[in-house]
Amino acid sequence: DKAIGIDVGSTTVKLVVINEQKIIINKHIENTKPRIKEQVKKLIEKVKSDLKEENIPIISTGYGRKLVEDAKENLTEITCHAKGIYNALGFGGTLVDIGGQDSKVIVIDKKGRVLDFTMNDKCSAGTGRFLEHTAGKMEISVEEIGKIALNAKKELKISSTCTVFAESEIISLLAYGEEIDAILKGLHRSLVTRIVGMINSVAFTPPIMLSGGVAKNEAIKKMLEEETGYKIFLPKYPQLMGAYGAAIIAFEKYIKNSRGI
Amino acid sequence: DKAIGIDVGSTTVKLVVINEQKIIINKHIENTKPRIKEQVKKLIEKVKSDLKEENIPIISTGYGRKLVEDAKENLTEITCHAKGIYNALGFGGTLVDIGGQDSKVIVIDKKGRVLDFTMNDKCSAGTGRFLEHTAGKMEISVEEIGKIALNAKKELKISSTCTVFAESEIISLLAYGEEIDAILKGLHRSLVTRIVGMINSVAFTPPIMLSGGVAKNEAIKKMLEEETGYKIFLPKYPQLMGAYGAAIIAFEKYIKNSRGI
Ligand code: SF4
Repeated sequence: DKAIGIDVGSTTVKLVVINEQKIIINKHIENTKPRIKEQVKKLIEKVKSDLKEENIPIISTGYGRKLVEDAKENLTEITCHAKGIYNALGFGGTLVDIGGQDSKVIVIDKKGRVLDFTMNDKCSAGTGRFLEHTAGKMEISVEEIGKIALNAKKELKISSTCTVFAESEIISLLAYGEEIDAILKGLHRSLVTRIVGMINSVAFTPPIMLSGGVAKNEAIKKMLEEETGYKIFLPKYPQLMGAYGAAIIAFEKYIKNSRGI
Repeated sequence: DKAIGIDVGSTTVKLVVINEQKIIINKHIENTKPRIKEQVKKLIEKVKSDLKEENIPIISTGYGRKLVEDAKENLTEITCHAKGIYNALGFGGTLVDIGGQDSKVIVIDKKGRVLDFTMNDKCSAGTGRFLEHTAGKMEISVEEIGKIALNAKKELKISSTCTVFAESEIISLLAYGEEIDAILKGLHRSLVTRIVGMINSVAFTPPIMLSGGVAKNEAIKKMLEEETGYKIFLPKYPQLMGAYGAAIIAFEKYIKNSRGI
């Protein structure tokens, strides 16, 4: 018996298949295309035919969750992320999820229930987009920026909080001959400061768990540890927590319950 | 007798010279350079030598006002803009100043005093930068966008409020084959909506007066009239209100008063 969770985000579509042990046996990440509905339909068909099973329950989440026609239910990202991280790590605490287009902080109790949360999808300055946009100006890939910032000796303060104004600010810092690594370190600090602001706005409970596309950025993890004073825990697949949570809920609701276990 | 007002903004430096009739007899607008202090010093020297006068009182305003060494005083933009528009138009009301990097709404009474104000220099989405940044993606100059938006038959709703997210949104609208003019109209609407939000946050008094670099944009003026229901008044030099106000204060304080008039 298996279940599928699919997280349709505005930048990427993530799909996972889990087995009875709640282990991920299959995963897919692809960029979101203009015709999301067709893209998702095709992806699900492919996965089902690869598994040679037709009746796999599916739950969808994410910004485009209502476009998944085959889903039994569409659940919010908060519900699915909480479920996913709780099952991946085995304990509660405060989940910090930093994605390319949004960021969220979710407080989860010892039983996996959501106690409090906050979400930002309105201002790019508090999301991974902040780094992407500004790093783009320096012609450095998003994959590298974390390492460069981590190894920087000096750190420059970026005073603009807006992504667009920060972009102009770094252009003039570069014109003044400032070092790229010091600028990058300052940019990371700026994002972390915003995230800490979100953490301070909820009923925070340690430990801190980190997920989302930006969780792979080592500088973000380190600075978040510095700024909060708490050790940060990462799941094995930080980008898949929403899809994983959706799959677990699908399994529990449509397989386990139907068998009366 | 003459006086000089200088408005040192983050994108442009504006200088005006007025005579005894408070008429602008000399004006300069130049892009702000990295070494602002030297730039301003040179500009003032040039103006003074052109006028063949050494003792002209100077007041500075704007973000870089403290970098003007020759200024007798540095005054806030709110004070100077209010003074400038009141003298330019001859009546009070609510001044909406939309610049490239900030926007402000100032309520001015019948005697020219500031009753209330609000300012935004943190979020680029409420400033001229919003249009510049997004229009840049369409390879259209800022000078043209207003006219194109004004003549658009259709208007598309831009749902992102953030400049960066709006940029991605228009890229996908273009990919879907939507018309540039309809997109531009939607972008103008988005900026106007934010400005109306600012107007609603102060103790609004009609009429509305419009200044700043964006005042020249006809679509902004028209939409602001539509959205508020009030006729909008523009001064002859919308971009110079800060510098003009500074010059008037310099004249009143250091020439008129010193003569005991
Ligand atoms: S502050 Fe900047 S990044 Fe944030 S919403 Fe405004 S424009 Fe976007």
